[in-house]
Amino acid sequence: MNILDYETVALNDSADAMRIIDQTLLPGRTEIIELRTAQEIWDAIYLLRVRGAPAIGVAAGYGIYLLAKQIASTATATAAENSKPDLGNPSETLETFYAEYRRQSEYLNSARPTAVNLSWALKRMDGVCREAIDQVKSETRTAGDALNYIISRLHDESVAIQQEDIDTCRQIGEYGLSLIQPGDGLLTHCNAGQLATSKYGTATAPMYLGHERGYNLHIYCDETRPLLQGARLTSYELQSAGMDVTLLCDNMSASLMKQGKINAVFVGCDRMAANGDFANKIGTLVVATVAARYGVPFYVCVPSSSIDMNTPDGDHIVIEQRPDKEVTEMWYNERMAPESVKVYNPAFDVTDHELVTAVITERGIARAPFDESLHNLFL
Amino acid sequence: MNILDYETVALNDSADAMRIIDQTLLPGRTEIIELRTAQEIWDAIYLLRVRGAPAIGVAAGYGIYLLAKQIASTATATAAENSKPDLGNPSETLETFYAEYRRQSEYLNSARPTAVNLSWALKRMDGVCREAIDQVKSETRTAGDALNYIISRLHDESVAIQQEDIDTCRQIGEYGLSLIQPGDGLLTHCNAGQLATSKYGTATAPMYLGHERGYNLHIYCDETRPLLQGARLTSYELQSAGMDVTLLCDNMSASLMKQGKINAVFVGCDRMAANGDFANKIGTLVVATVAARYGVPFYVCVPSSSIDMNTPDGDHIVIEQRPDKEVTEMWYNERMAPESVKVYNPAFDVTDHELVTAVITERGIARAPFDESLHNLFL
Repeated sequence: MNILDYETVALNDSADAMRIIDQTLLPGRTEIIELRTAQEIWDAIYLLRVRGAPAIGVAAGYGIYLLAKQIASTATATAAENSKPDLGNPSETLETFYAEYRRQSEYLNSARPTAVNLSWALKRMDGVCREAIDQVKSETRTAGDALNYIISRLHDESVAIQQEDIDTCRQIGEYGLSLIQPGDGLLTHCNAGQLATSKYGTATAPMYLGHERGYNLHIYCDETRPLLQGARLTSYELQSAGMDVTLLCDNMSASLMKQGKINAVFVGCDRMAANGDFANKIGTLVVATVAARYGVPFYVCVPSSSIDMNTPDGDHIVIEQRPDKEVTEMWYNERMAPESVKVYNPAFDVTDHELVTAVITERGIARAPFDESLHNLFL
Repeated sequence: MNILDYETVALNDSADAMRIIDQTLLPGRTEIIELRTAQEIWDAIYLLRVRGAPAIGVAAGYGIYLLAKQIASTATATAAENSKPDLGNPSETLETFYAEYRRQSEYLNSARPTAVNLSWALKRMDGVCREAIDQVKSETRTAGDALNYIISRLHDESVAIQQEDIDTCRQIGEYGLSLIQPGDGLLTHCNAGQLATSKYGTATAPMYLGHERGYNLHIYCDETRPLLQGARLTSYELQSAGMDVTLLCDNMSASLMKQGKINAVFVGCDRMAANGDFANKIGTLVVATVAARYGVPFYVCVPSSSIDMNTPDGDHIVIEQRPDKEVTEMWYNERMAPESVKVYNPAFDVTDHELVTAVITERGIARAPFDESLHNLFL
């Protein structure tokens, strides 16, 4: 089974379940699972079966759509039982529906409180839900009709979220591809790949498009300690696509660049400030520093939605500290560090904009001075 | 049991066995084992129960001394059986002894063919052995007396190798200590610690001496992928000494330096060229590059015996490639990368001398221009 035959997150054909690749089993096993219940969806996000900010956003959209549909079915069934199939005033039914919708939305949102795309997607879906309810209230509809309309609006919105994600990634890929040459050696860090989005990825989008067009690229993946997303996910998805992929430890990039094997670095971005400073997976700053020394172009691939023009610079980005055991125990057969040793384990670092050659968004490519060029992207 | 109560390699009290800390069990278990037979000594070096260039040199010295003593015992016993306890002409006995000595020396040397200190120590011991044999041949001695004399010369030489190693490390520590302040945060990479020498270590020597003198240092250890010597050995030995130690992944040093938490970096060195370029554990070049960006002094601690004035620069140092599975499998509960993915896994990288603030040797501190200052160390 080739994971690229499947979108990372998608609705199934009968639109009654969400299909995901269970990323906790990669790279050992590629398994597509279907999620239906609130518990299944919450668990999938919490347990990282689906991960990566854009993919979590897409999963949240489909998730709340599926739950809304289930709430509506129950409401319609209850109305039918009570012999009120054509309620003259559906207002009560709608508010009962919405109260339950909100409860489920808040439940999903609790799966990963710090993932911005989770709350962003749920908020966007909530806006559509509220708008549809207000609209049907002003019309003469039965409760059943009204609910059907709301569900269809939620369906369309969740599909739109995924489609926008795909379009954004593809456009980032096109812009990124304009910056590289056939035969190039490209380095990436962590997984800003298809598995972190619904298709193409961000940092990997130029690689996928280049591969489609016969660029014969040589891809180098940092393994990305402590959680090994580069080894487990990026090298896996790019190898599955048929690319020439080489895995390395995070401390080996300088050795490669010194030998002239890397023509460009592409990384993703969790959050970019208005001056171009950006937070990304820990180690990104190391790669950027080494690239600067060896004159290797360093590109940040970022959907414009992740550029926060209200954050002036990187000093205003708060960095999450992760548990010690990710470094001292996780993945290992036995504890690989002495008991009770202190551990420094930040999830992200902030790379200074002066180390960035260009910022690649779906709206275009921004170069220094970034405070101007990023601002111009949003005009 | 505190590992610092034991020298990494030493002769036992009755001088009939070598005592080592079995490093393959660290940090989970601290076990002192005694090695007597050729097989035990060879296995200990091959299986990395004893590791680190200087420590291997000391082990080789003691190893061949112990084996020489066993050969001599057998020869004396054989002579006694043959009723030739006081052989008038011991020449035949001595040459038989030496042939067997050479055989054992070559056997030990095969344990890790690329470890320079192994062959260096065996060559030094061989020189002493040959010299002692030639000397006793010119004298009037019984074979038993002659062998006793040779063995005592080998004993003294092996003890001298260890003592020189201790003296060298301590002197490096004194020079290194002159470059730091109480309360400093110091970063090190891999294990150039006591466990790689017989005492003090090289990069860690200033830390041990500083700790003895109440410097209240804050030590940061790169875990050092793929073999995790920083996590398994360095953080362990420094914590055992009572120091304040923090472990980090190799991709986190930039984040620390950006926060100003590191006042100096100390690393070891496997081989330094005449211009100051040097090979050390993979990732050293990354740390040096990051330190240069953040203005953190970068110090290389190296016994003068590891400076090779016949190698003009780093381009002439050949880098060993290691097996893929160190990256993809070792230490893990399951394979953490896709099957058949290509792996880049060099054991070392070469750091350019322009990234080095100073070279600390037992003969003094060398600063740029290194081609001059290193040359002057040997005058």
